[in-house]
Amino acid sequence: MSKEITSRSQDYSQWYNDLIIKGGLADYSAVRGCMVIKPYGYALWENMRDVLDRMFKETGHQNAYFPLFVPKSLFEAEEKNAEGFAKECAVVTHYRLKTDPNNKGKLIVDPEARLEEELVVRPTSEAIIWNTYKGWIQSYRDLPILVNQWANVVRWEMRTRLFLRTAEFLWQEGHTAHATKDEAIAETKQMLEVYADFAENWMALPVVKGVKSANERFAGADDTYCIEALMQDGKALQAGTSHFLGQNFAKAFDVKFADKENKLEYVWATSWGVSTRLIGALVMAHSDDDGLILPPKIAPVQVVIVPIFKGADQKAVLDEKINAIVKELKAKGIRVKYDDSDATRPGWKFAEYEMKGVPVRLALGARDLENNVVEVARRDTKEKNSVSLDGITDHIVGLLDDIQTSIFKKAHDFREEHITKADTWEEFNNLLDTKTGFIAAHWDGTPETEDKIKELSKATIRCIPLNNEQEAGQCILTGNPSTQRVLFARAY
Amino acid sequence: MSKEITSRSQDYSQWYNDLIIKGGLADYSAVRGCMVIKPYGYALWENMRDVLDRMFKETGHQNAYFPLFVPKSLFEAEEKNAEGFAKECAVVTHYRLKTDPNNKGKLIVDPEARLEEELVVRPTSEAIIWNTYKGWIQSYRDLPILVNQWANVVRWEMRTRLFLRTAEFLWQEGHTAHATKDEAIAETKQMLEVYADFAENWMALPVVKGVKSANERFAGADDTYCIEALMQDGKALQAGTSHFLGQNFAKAFDVKFADKENKLEYVWATSWGVSTRLIGALVMAHSDDDGLILPPKIAPVQVVIVPIFKGADQKAVLDEKINAIVKELKAKGIRVKYDDSDATRPGWKFAEYEMKGVPVRLALGARDLENNVVEVARRDTKEKNSVSLDGITDHIVGLLDDIQTSIFKKAHDFREEHITKADTWEEFNNLLDTKTGFIAAHWDGTPETEDKIKELSKATIRCIPLNNEQEAGQCILTGNPSTQRVLFARAY
Repeated sequence: MSKEITSRSQDYSQWYNDLIIKGGLADYSAVRGCMVIKPYGYALWENMRDVLDRMFKETGHQNAYFPLFVPKSLFEAEEKNAEGFAKECAVVTHYRLKTDPNNKGKLIVDPEARLEEELVVRPTSEAIIWNTYKGWIQSYRDLPILVNQWANVVRWEMRTRLFLRTAEFLWQEGHTAHATKDEAIAETKQMLEVYADFAENWMALPVVKGVKSANERFAGADDTYCIEALMQDGKALQAGTSHFLGQNFAKAFDVKFADKENKLEYVWATSWGVSTRLIGALVMAHSDDDGLILPPKIAPVQVVIVPIFKGADQKAVLDEKINAIVKELKAKGIRVKYDDSDATRPGWKFAEYEMKGVPVRLALGARDLENNVVEVARRDTKEKNSVSLDGITDHIVGLLDDIQTSIFKKAHDFREEHITKADTWEEFNNLLDTKTGFIAAHWDGTPETEDKIKELSKATIRCIPLNNEQEAGQCILTGNPSTQRVLFARAY
Repeated sequence: MSKEITSRSQDYSQWYNDLIIKGGLADYSAVRGCMVIKPYGYALWENMRDVLDRMFKETGHQNAYFPLFVPKSLFEAEEKNAEGFAKECAVVTHYRLKTDPNNKGKLIVDPEARLEEELVVRPTSEAIIWNTYKGWIQSYRDLPILVNQWANVVRWEMRTRLFLRTAEFLWQEGHTAHATKDEAIAETKQMLEVYADFAENWMALPVVKGVKSANERFAGADDTYCIEALMQDGKALQAGTSHFLGQNFAKAFDVKFADKENKLEYVWATSWGVSTRLIGALVMAHSDDDGLILPPKIAPVQVVIVPIFKGADQKAVLDEKINAIVKELKAKGIRVKYDDSDATRPGWKFAEYEMKGVPVRLALGARDLENNVVEVARRDTKEKNSVSLDGITDHIVGLLDDIQTSIFKKAHDFREEHITKADTWEEFNNLLDTKTGFIAAHWDGTPETEDKIKELSKATIRCIPLNNEQEAGQCILTGNPSTQRVLFARAY
């Protein structure tokens, strides 16, 4: 089984696709750029969603649901936002099909069912939501509004990759409304912290927290905060963003509130989102040439148990013991699967669960049982140990914790080794081509220079890290004075 | 507050809209026929979804996610299904907007970005899913496939009603694939039982389980099973459907499997769904002229506590006691809200939570505390009692159970009183106009007669109840012989 995966060194990009398809996470679909999220991939997303949802609720947010469609006139109201997304909008123009008079059994778009106003399939929901908030906000008593939505969105991308960049994707988008600028900025930063916490402590994905340069800002935002992760090929991946929207949408949709002095003011806004793209990040950050490596905390199956037996009698004895272990593990909240299917052999199962990244595998045979031991294999390091059946549950609980920590540490060490300072243009390009990773370099702060650097090197400014060290220097491209290094990388 | 609600006797339809809007469940949107589900309404949907999701998983199903769009050529593959939905399809024809050269700041659809093949926004997902299953199924070992999807769908309805009939709605759709006809029929029936269980035991909504006549069958199904509920105005509402799809989609998409004898056979299919429409049913079945009445098991807030106090000292004493009660209730898994906001008075709060259908309200003042009692009001009957604070938690747990049972009983009694036999055409029409409800009447079994009855009376066959009594009789319209009564009603 594992032989079917292309190795990273051979073709990193194909390796990634192999993992997604053969690991059972997703499938290509008949719709250009859209994927099917398969049950195993969706179970992973459900675990991620449930944790994030709890975090959002703990920070005072509620869920709601807004329409999929945005009338064109609303979509264009916030000009920068509209301009930013116009080129990738799926547009509904008709509301009916009819039988093709020239082709029995075929359908055509009914030309008489043309919409008076075209509908954009939401690429993001600021427009439709702020048009709604207008009706919800009169006075300071109506603020803050702390709402999140779990939804599908569509961005017509020309080059798509499973999970990383698909025309339709699933995400959550928080949209909050505040009476003051400070409160909105605090919310923006709070949600960045929530994302970083989730990425590091659940996905075992180390991230750099920072703020985007003007070029990379969300269309319609005053400031975009982000978490940036590093993949094994040394390319960066934006894993989540939190936007301070200023009063841009309030002005576009005329959303004002009466403050305590009964003075009318525009409302302050934030929006923030993470998407199924995170699954792509997860796969690329941790996996190896034998398949997926999933962090225990969000793995759909944390422990798989494979019985090794000949005949029904041996099986019956193993069943009794294994069912007892399953029960104990479940009682501890562990997601465990007992794979006693006789359709496939143990060796096939081992490879299959390695491919699928199940963190811990137990294999138990008749002789093990006699010796009161079980073979415990951990997916991340491939270590195998014979462990006493006494106290096996506690052993597994500890092992899952250890794997979680260990996967994070590995990715963290890799990331730390791949933040490199460059002081000259030559050094910068050399690092990008050989060592890869984040390059900490001086930049003169202008959008023009950033554009030029991107054009010449294909690297972009991933972020200006929060609490960035201030240090006088010279821009790697222009030599103009700079006050701090920023993180460049080639990115997904 | 309660004065603002139109009474049922005055205008039933306006009463319903008032409840939805003023109860904070949903809002109209800028998109024709689409609604905004507000946080309170969405919290209700989350509770319903979570219970259903657990039931689906307990019956062996997994979630997955399929594309929002269906290419027209796939959509039209199963002809009956396509014909059934063609007239209400939103169609994406373009993938880009561009700046209007004649109107600065405005956007137009870019005529150069026309799709080669139009995309239908899914009104239901059989087509895209069976096209996918084709790649997943080779042999009997790949069966059954037991998959469910939580998604948004779009059906361009001409006349819409909040929750009951909206252009976009949220739902779940199960799509299963089986090796045998019997297994598929058993699955269809199993899911009908799951829906009936959920409706009756969680939503407190009594339902009749039955099978649809050919006229009312899902487009593309061999048989449609349904649960039918009765609203307070005597109109029926289809609350969920489970379809036996035969081999129709397998044939349309050429999905065959090799059986144990290595013979190729077409796969058997089912699909089944319930939607946010259930919220409309819930509201119409239980509520009264003062607002919503929600069954405790799915109410977003089960208990609200309102303090009655003058000054900070009294408040501090109440806080201590109430926080202790809140903690105890939460420990028992009860969703409780302590509303100690000083922005509104107790009377306003009472009316607000009545409007929102919170099952139990506690009001606690300084004097109550001295007497070691609390005022407990139940929303359904409006009964108020002074209850000892000793053992208050257990009292509330019991009360919530009692309310759940009681709401169901009330709706059940109403439904039973509103199933009436009619033996003549005159009697039939008279009942429809005066008593309303389900009319059990003989029908000659032909689609033509059913059409004619619908045309003349606006009543349709809601279902042929499962295990229906067989009884010789004469069709109320044609006088032709009939072997059983079926349930007619005017319906939402």
